[in-house]
Amino acid sequence: MTDRHYSLVCDFYELTMARGYLHTPEAAHMTAYFDVFFRRIPDGGGYAIAAGLEQILDYVSNLHFDDEDIEFLRGKGIFDEEFLSYLRAFRFTGDVWAVPEGTVIFPGEPVITVRAPIIEAQLLETFILLTFNHQSLVATKASRVVRAASGRTVTEFGSRRAHGPDAAVLGARAAYIGGCAGTACAESDRVFGVPAGGTMAHSWVQMFPTELDAFRAYCRLYPESPTLLVDTYNVLSSGVPNAIAAFDEVLKPKGLTNCAIRLDSGDITYLSKKARAMLDAAGWNSCKIVASNSLDEYIIRDLIRQGAAVDAFGVGERMITSRSEPVFDGVYKLCAVEEPDGAIIPKIKISENAAKITNPHFKTVYRLYSRETGKAEADLICLRSEDAPDETRPLEIFDPEHTWKRKTLENFRAREMLVQVVSGGRLVYDCPPLSDVRAYCAAEQETLWDEVTRFENPHNYYVDLSLPLWTLKNRMLLGR
Amino acid sequence: MTDRHYSLVCDFYELTMARGYLHTPEAAHMTAYFDVFFRRIPDGGGYAIAAGLEQILDYVSNLHFDDEDIEFLRGKGIFDEEFLSYLRAFRFTGDVWAVPEGTVIFPGEPVITVRAPIIEAQLLETFILLTFNHQSLVATKASRVVRAASGRTVTEFGSRRAHGPDAAVLGARAAYIGGCAGTACAESDRVFGVPAGGTMAHSWVQMFPTELDAFRAYCRLYPESPTLLVDTYNVLSSGVPNAIAAFDEVLKPKGLTNCAIRLDSGDITYLSKKARAMLDAAGWNSCKIVASNSLDEYIIRDLIRQGAAVDAFGVGERMITSRSEPVFDGVYKLCAVEEPDGAIIPKIKISENAAKITNPHFKTVYRLYSRETGKAEADLICLRSEDAPDETRPLEIFDPEHTWKRKTLENFRAREMLVQVVSGGRLVYDCPPLSDVRAYCAAEQETLWDEVTRFENPHNYYVDLSLPLWTLKNRMLLGR
Repeated sequence: MTDRHYSLVCDFYELTMARGYLHTPEAAHMTAYFDVFFRRIPDGGGYAIAAGLEQILDYVSNLHFDDEDIEFLRGKGIFDEEFLSYLRAFRFTGDVWAVPEGTVIFPGEPVITVRAPIIEAQLLETFILLTFNHQSLVATKASRVVRAASGRTVTEFGSRRAHGPDAAVLGARAAYIGGCAGTACAESDRVFGVPAGGTMAHSWVQMFPTELDAFRAYCRLYPESPTLLVDTYNVLSSGVPNAIAAFDEVLKPKGLTNCAIRLDSGDITYLSKKARAMLDAAGWNSCKIVASNSLDEYIIRDLIRQGAAVDAFGVGERMITSRSEPVFDGVYKLCAVEEPDGAIIPKIKISENAAKITNPHFKTVYRLYSRETGKAEADLICLRSEDAPDETRPLEIFDPEHTWKRKTLENFRAREMLVQVVSGGRLVYDCPPLSDVRAYCAAEQETLWDEVTRFENPHNYYVDLSLPLWTLKNRMLLGR
Repeated sequence: MTDRHYSLVCDFYELTMARGYLHTPEAAHMTAYFDVFFRRIPDGGGYAIAAGLEQILDYVSNLHFDDEDIEFLRGKGIFDEEFLSYLRAFRFTGDVWAVPEGTVIFPGEPVITVRAPIIEAQLLETFILLTFNHQSLVATKASRVVRAASGRTVTEFGSRRAHGPDAAVLGARAAYIGGCAGTACAESDRVFGVPAGGTMAHSWVQMFPTELDAFRAYCRLYPESPTLLVDTYNVLSSGVPNAIAAFDEVLKPKGLTNCAIRLDSGDITYLSKKARAMLDAAGWNSCKIVASNSLDEYIIRDLIRQGAAVDAFGVGERMITSRSEPVFDGVYKLCAVEEPDGAIIPKIKISENAAKITNPHFKTVYRLYSRETGKAEADLICLRSEDAPDETRPLEIFDPEHTWKRKTLENFRAREMLVQVVSGGRLVYDCPPLSDVRAYCAAEQETLWDEVTRFENPHNYYVDLSLPLWTLKNRMLLGR
């Protein structure tokens, strides 16, 4: 994807404001701090997964405006030559902090912070948001689906219902981070190394005189691991018997046993149990059963509860679009400005809606883990200027809205979540291989209490403010 | 977007099947016919809008596999050199028929038909589906939102919540086809000419010492058409009075009157009425009011019913993701194969679920319009080999499931909906300029009865089968 050019994948107002700042002396030399945070966990879940940082860093380090971009902007008739020259020479010179991809994240806490001259920081807004929002959405959904599958393999199958080519390719990447074993999308394998696999469509079966002919031909072509789609005509009276016949005929003489059937319609619980019995009776205990019909975390959980004999799931439209909740609501909000003399002035966005009030100032986030259980107990948003929480003493934290709700942590470990990834415009972070990100994401979820990971009415994980930050915020709200 | 390379934006099984066909003599020389059709109109609506054809044609006419693709596939270890050489030399040589972009379409009818050697036809599946599904989804949603706005301007604002960069850029294109006046996405303007515009974020207001300073600066920068965001602090006590002050100070002396304010939170009906009164009282009757907070067709309809004084709507996440229903369920199904001697053998996919049974054979679709009203009365799916409906005689059509439901059309005009767009691998269709597509789409919707366009419980538009097609299908279902 590195040959793509995203400079104008931005809201037009980033450009009108950028020109505005350039021509506004009192703003032009200000450094701005913007936080990315989100407000709501999709599907009423208890946690989300951060994803998309690698693409964001690619973008930030390569952002420039070429002659074609400039020509287009000139044609709009509202941009002067001084601004166009500024854009032509543009490179990002600021700093970025972010949580690593695959990190478990919670509402209200900064997950990316951008510090840069206001024009630069403003120009990044749209691309950062759309990338973070999209991939975090799909990674979060995938983590739910994979959790529902209780150790069974989940593969991403949704390209055909994705919102355009990027949504297919990047969505498969995000689903892999969230825990999928692979994807059907070949390009996501080529570009990101997400293992791609696939077998046959109904059309394959229809192209042959008989279903058995189709299965036999496929087993001959891919004897090492054929997966036969058994629902083109009738699963139990035709599909499974023909699959067994083809396995007997082609695989058995070679001593090959690695094979599978796929159910793509009908009552999966009933059909999978019957098919399992038929396969076992025929000596094909090694044959796996894959299911793939409009699945999501709820249907998978129900299938398993009902004892469906399914070994692997192919999940399509409901994961690649996060159908039940296709929007991740990350926002990009100004939290401070730095004057040329280095003084940082905190900024706050006030709203009637308490949840829409922002946390002011340049901040960081600590996650507090119990040293006894290894589990995450709470996140604490602090001012950058504060010392890290002192692990040697009990720490009292409190709910920022209902401040009488207090909790004292002892024997804890504090981990700073935000890592500097760009410094003075230079990338200072190596994105780990995607399989490491996936493993890290799985380990991240292991640090959560079961109460936080359940699908319905999860426990509200604590995201608290340090006393200095809480005090500053309340002073600003009161206008003092 | 023409420098993009989509050859591997496909499900991996297209490739395993392609290799399979190459090595299966009885299949390799067959020509296959695939129909794209969809089953369900999103949001329980009465019609959908076809979109994405231009990108599909780009793809079909440019599809090839370069050395990098081949290298990747070789590395997968299951593709032999004969197949890789085949792919390296691959060009599409088949035929494609499609309904023009912007056409109103209904469930069950072919909207794209591909006729090609089976390997070629199979390879196109994923890209065609994901492009058609994505853009038709957004165009359909946009047509609902625009209809709700009853002539007021609707602009697409959703890039930041789109599913990746393509979803932002192509989604804005689809929303424009569906009736939006423009977009916030600059790249969609550069690439597709969708008019992009934009004004300011809350951060602009926060960067200045006072809201009035921010407004004044913006009016000076963009005096021809400033839109001021008035809800950073308090709409009625601060935002609107400051906007009026800035307009008075900067625009009035120059005799400029083209301006607007934008409301992005709070009770839009209440605030817009109050703001309208304040603007009018100050002599700014010319100032437009734009609203933009999590809008969709239902909220816009309610705002208008309640008398909200809104002139234009900016619609974001709920349109760009079609949040209420983010999946368009177009499928790609084999409907016939042609043997080397030219004989066409119809194919059918049988299912327990009647709606999932496909319509066999090489077909076309006629839309029947009343010559009296100009309204579309029914669509008729016919075998290609049939004559066009005879407009000089009464035509009896019947419901394919409940065949006693019959209707006789007189004084009608029959229009063939599918147009040949690719012939022998060559593009034989000029994609019209996007603004023409948008105008055509608006005209298309004018041919629908109000009963079909309403949001809830619309009338079920008739999509019937010709008697020969119905007879063939039923014979095949009975296995005769």
